[in-house]
Amino acid sequence: MSSLKTILALLEGAELKNCPAPENIEVDKVLPLTSKNAKFISFVSSKAFVNDAKASEAAAILASSELAELIPGKVLIVVPQVELALSKVLLHFSPQKQPDGKIATNAVIHPTAKIGENTTIGNFVTIGEGSVIGKNSIIGDGVKIEHNVTIGDDARIGMNCAFYHGTKIGDRFTVFANSTFGGDGFGFVFANGKHNKLPQVGRVIIGDDVEVGANCTVDRGAITDTTIGNGCKFDNMVHIAHNCNVGNHVIIAGQSGLAGSVTLGNYVIIGGACAISDHLTLVEGTIIAGGTSLRTSPKTKDVYIGWDLGLNFPDFQKYRVNIKNIVVLNKWIKRIKEVEKKLGIDLPDPN
Amino acid sequence: MSSLKTILALLEGAELKNCPAPENIEVDKVLPLTSKNAKFISFVSSKAFVNDAKASEAAAILASSELAELIPGKVLIVVPQVELALSKVLLHFSPQKQPDGKIATNAVIHPTAKIGENTTIGNFVTIGEGSVIGKNSIIGDGVKIEHNVTIGDDARIGMNCAFYHGTKIGDRFTVFANSTFGGDGFGFVFANGKHNKLPQVGRVIIGDDVEVGANCTVDRGAITDTTIGNGCKFDNMVHIAHNCNVGNHVIIAGQSGLAGSVTLGNYVIIGGACAISDHLTLVEGTIIAGGTSLRTSPKTKDVYIGWDLGLNFPDFQKYRVNIKNIVVLNKWIKRIKEVEKKLGIDLPDPN
Amino acid sequence: MSSLKTILALLEGAELKNCPAPENIEVDKVLPLTSKNAKFISFVSSKAFVNDAKASEAAAILASSELAELIPGKVLIVVPQVELALSKVLLHFSPQKQPDGKIATNAVIHPTAKIGENTTIGNFVTIGEGSVIGKNSIIGDGVKIEHNVTIGDDARIGMNCAFYHGTKIGDRFTVFANSTFGGDGFGFVFANGKHNKLPQVGRVIIGDDVEVGANCTVDRGAITDTTIGNGCKFDNMVHIAHNCNVGNHVIIAGQSGLAGSVTLGNYVIIGGACAISDHLTLVEGTIIAGGTSLRTSPKTKDVYIGWDLGLNFPDFQKYRVNIKNIVVLNKWIKRIKEVEKKLGIDLPDPN
Repeated sequence: MSSLKTILALLEGAELKNCPAPENIEVDKVLPLTSKNAKFISFVSSKAFVNDAKASEAAAILASSELAELIPGKVLIVVPQVELALSKVLLHFSPQKQPDGKIATNAVIHPTAKIGENTTIGNFVTIGEGSVIGKNSIIGDGVKIEHNVTIGDDARIGMNCAFYHGTKIGDRFTVFANSTFGGDGFGFVFANGKHNKLPQVGRVIIGDDVEVGANCTVDRGAITDTTIGNGCKFDNMVHIAHNCNVGNHVIIAGQSGLAGSVTLGNYVIIGGACAISDHLTLVEGTIIAGGTSLRTSPKTKDVYIGWDLGLNFPDFQKYRVNIKNIVVLNKWIKRIKEVEKKLGIDLPDPN
Repeated sequence: MSSLKTILALLEGAELKNCPAPENIEVDKVLPLTSKNAKFISFVSSKAFVNDAKASEAAAILASSELAELIPGKVLIVVPQVELALSKVLLHFSPQKQPDGKIATNAVIHPTAKIGENTTIGNFVTIGEGSVIGKNSIIGDGVKIEHNVTIGDDARIGMNCAFYHGTKIGDRFTVFANSTFGGDGFGFVFANGKHNKLPQVGRVIIGDDVEVGANCTVDRGAITDTTIGNGCKFDNMVHIAHNCNVGNHVIIAGQSGLAGSVTLGNYVIIGGACAISDHLTLVEGTIIAGGTSLRTSPKTKDVYIGWDLGLNFPDFQKYRVNIKNIVVLNKWIKRIKEVEKKLGIDLPDPN
Repeated sequence: MSSLKTILALLEGAELKNCPAPENIEVDKVLPLTSKNAKFISFVSSKAFVNDAKASEAAAILASSELAELIPGKVLIVVPQVELALSKVLLHFSPQKQPDGKIATNAVIHPTAKIGENTTIGNFVTIGEGSVIGKNSIIGDGVKIEHNVTIGDDARIGMNCAFYHGTKIGDRFTVFANSTFGGDGFGFVFANGKHNKLPQVGRVIIGDDVEVGANCTVDRGAITDTTIGNGCKFDNMVHIAHNCNVGNHVIIAGQSGLAGSVTLGNYVIIGGACAISDHLTLVEGTIIAGGTSLRTSPKTKDVYIGWDLGLNFPDFQKYRVNIKNIVVLNKWIKRIKEVEKKLGIDLPDPN
C-alpha cells in the first residue's frame, strides 16, 4: 500500500487534480481502467479510453493534460508523458530483482574469468577462460558462457542462455531465457557433391542498452563481425544471421528474422513474423509491417508491407481493395473476350 | 509380445473378427499397414487405406465397423474410435516414463518450495522461493523454476525449460525441452530518442491438460495476465505474446505466433507458420489455415486462409485459380486498351 | 603470424603469382578485400569484386585462374576452388576447439552409458541409461541426453541441447546451442470434446555429416521414425515435424519448417522463413525460395517461390510485374464496364 502522495513524489512534473487529501488515499497496484473492487491506480493513454476513464473505479488515473480536460471530476494525476509515469508506478509496486553479489557454489568459473562487483551468478552457470562479466549484473541459473566473452555492467541474463566464445556485449544488456549468441553463421560451399563448411570466425558485437527476448539467436560473423547497435530491442524468437549490421534503437518484433548481411539503419522498426532477405539494406526509420517477407531494399524511408510486394502502405491499401476483384478476375477476363468477340477480335489467351 | 487377447482386453467395446484363437496370435508393436516381416498390429483410419489393409501383412488391424465391411477375411479389431484404440495399443507397447519420487541430490530447491508426493526432480534443476510443484510430476534435467511458480499434478516438464516468477499452471501439464514461460512481454515507449521499457508485471496463467512443444515461449502480461485455457495443445516454436487470452481446447501448430492481446475463443485451430496480429479476436471454432498472416479479425466462424487476404476457403480457391491470370494481367490490360482504341477511347493508364 | 609460404603449403594445387619471396610476407588473418591497416590475406569470389581486388591492401588474394587474369600485378594465390581454399586458411588462423577427453566431475552419466575415447563431456551434462557417445566428440556444457540415445564420432554438441530417448545420430554431427531432438510429434485426436494425445513412439534418426543450427527442433515420429539423411545442413530455428523423411545433402535456411510427413529428395534447398505443408514431397534438387509458404507438391525439379502461388521463378517474375496492375485493378474493371456500356452490354458485376 502506498498513498497517492507517495506516488506523486515519484513522478516529475506531476500535478494532482480533484483530490484534496492524497495522503489519505491508498493504492496497491496498477490495473486497467475497467477493473473492479480494488484500490488501484490506472491510466488513460488515448482518447479511445476517455469513456472508460469517466466510468472507472480507479482511485486515481494517470493522464496527459490534454486528456485530463475530458475527464472532469475524477482524481487525476496529470503528467507530461503518461507511459513513462506508468513505468515508474509499475516499478514502485513491482520492484525488479536486484543483484546481491552471491556466486552459486556450484557455478564453474574459470580462474582467469573476471566477475564484477555485486554481480550475482546463478546455479549451474559456467564461465570460460578469459571471459569478463561487469558489475551489478545477474547471470541466471544454467547460463553457459564460453571463453573470451565480455558482458558489461547491469546485465540481466535469462536462464539457460548460451554465449559462444568471443561475443562482446555492452552495458545494461537484458536477455530472456534460452537465447543463443555467437553460434556459427550458416555458410557452406557446394563442391564435390556436398556442402562444405565455411569456418565462421567473426564475432557477435552488441552495444549498450540492448534487450533481447527469449529463445532468440544471433549468429557470429563469417569473417567480419555481426554487429548490433545501442538501444535495440528484440522480441522472442528473433533470428539475426551472420554479418548483419543493425543500427541503434532498432525494434524487431517476435519471430522475425534477418538473413545474412542485412544492414538496418537507426530507428528501423520491423514487425512480427517478418523475413528480411540477405544483403538487403533498410534506411534509417524504415518501418516494415508485421508478416512481411521482404526481397528487395526499399530506397526511401516509409512503411512497407506485404508478401514480397514491396508496397508502401497506401498502395497496400489499394491492393487489399482489389483482392475481391482478383477472386473473380477470370470472369472479368471472360467479359473482355466477349467484348472482343463483339468487335470481331479473335485472339488466343496470352501466356 | 502380447497376445491379441491381451490387446482386446485393453479396448472398450472392441470386437474381434475372423480370428478364432486370439490367445495364439502374438504381436509386439504397432506399424503402418504396408510394413513387412514383423508380428505387428496395424490400423485403418480412412477409406483411402482400405486397399492397403486388404494387402497388409499385419497380424490384426484396428478398424471402424464401417471400414471393416470393406476388408473381408482379415483379422480385424472393430472399435468405436480407431485412433483412440490405437492410442491405447501404442501406450501398451511403449509405456511412458512414470515419476518415482526421486529428487536429484544436485537439484537446488529453496527450503520454502513445496514438492508433491512421488514427484521426480531431475539433475541440475533449480526451484525458487515459494514455488509449488504438484504430485506425480516429472521435472526434467536442467529445468529452471524461479520463485512463486505453481505447477499442478502429473506434470511432465521437458529438459532445460525455464519458468519465470509468478507463472501458474494447472494439472497434467506437458511441455517439451527448451521452452520459456513468463519472460517479459515486448513493451516499450518511445521517448527522448529511445525505446523505454514498460515494466511487465502481469503473469502467465495456464489451465489444465495443456501440452506445449519444444522451444516455445509464452510471455507474461504487461499489467494483467496472459491466460491460456484448459486442454490447449501447442506445437514447437509457438510464441504467445503478452496479454493474449487463449480459450479452451485451442490448437496452434508449429512456428505460429500470437502478437500481443490476441483473444482466441474455444476450439480455435491455427495451422503452422501463422502470424496473428495484435489485438485480433477469433471467435469459437475459427480455423486459420497454415501459412496465414492475419491482419483483421474475421467476424464469423469459418476457415480463413491467405496472406493477409482475409479470404474464407471458397474465395481462396477462386483466388488460386486466378493466379495464372495475374501472371498475364499486363497482357489483358493491353487488350483492354486495344478494345478502347477500336472504340475511339483514349485514356491514360490509371494510378 | 604465418608467412605466405606457410599458407601456400596448406593449399593443394595453389600457385603464387607476382610474389618472388613468399617466405618474407607475413599475414595473420583473413579479411575482406576493402579492409585497411592489417597484414591480411583476402579472396575474390566473383567478377563483381575484381575492382575491389585491384585496389585492395591485402598482402595476398585467393583467386581462381579465371579471375586472376583480371587482376594483374597483385600478389595472388591462384587456387582451383577459392572458397575451399579460403576455408583452409580460415581454419589455419582460427583453429577449432578440439576434444581432450576430459569428463566434467559434475556430469551425471549413467553407469551403462558408453563414452568414446578422447571425448570431452562438459559441465552439468546428463547422459541416460544405455546411451552411447562416439569418440573425439565434444558434449557442451549443460547438454541433456536421455536414455538409449546414440551419437557418433567427432560430434560437436552445443550448450544446453536436449536429446530425447531413442534418438540415433551418425558421425561428425554438429549442432549449436538450445536445440531439441526427439520431442513428441504433434498428434492429437479430437473426441469427446477434447484433443486426445496420440502417443508418439517413433524415433529421430539422423545420418552422418549433418549440421544443425541453434534453437532448432526435430520431432520424433508418431509410429515410424523421422529421418534425416547424410550431409544435411539446417540453419537456426528450423523445425522438422514428425515423420518427415529428409534426403541427403538437404539445405534448410533459418526459421523454415517442415510440417508432418514431408518428404525431401536429395539436394533439396529450402530458403529461410519457408513453411512446407504436411505430406508434401519435393523431388531431388528442388529449390524453394525464401519466404515461401508451399501448399502443394511441385511435380518437377525447379525453383519455386511465392505465397502459396506454386509459381516457378519465371512466372513469379511476371507475377511481380503485375502487382502494380493489381493495385489499380478496380480502375481497369471500371474501364471494362465503360467499354461494355458503349457496346450496349449491361451486366452485373460477377461474384
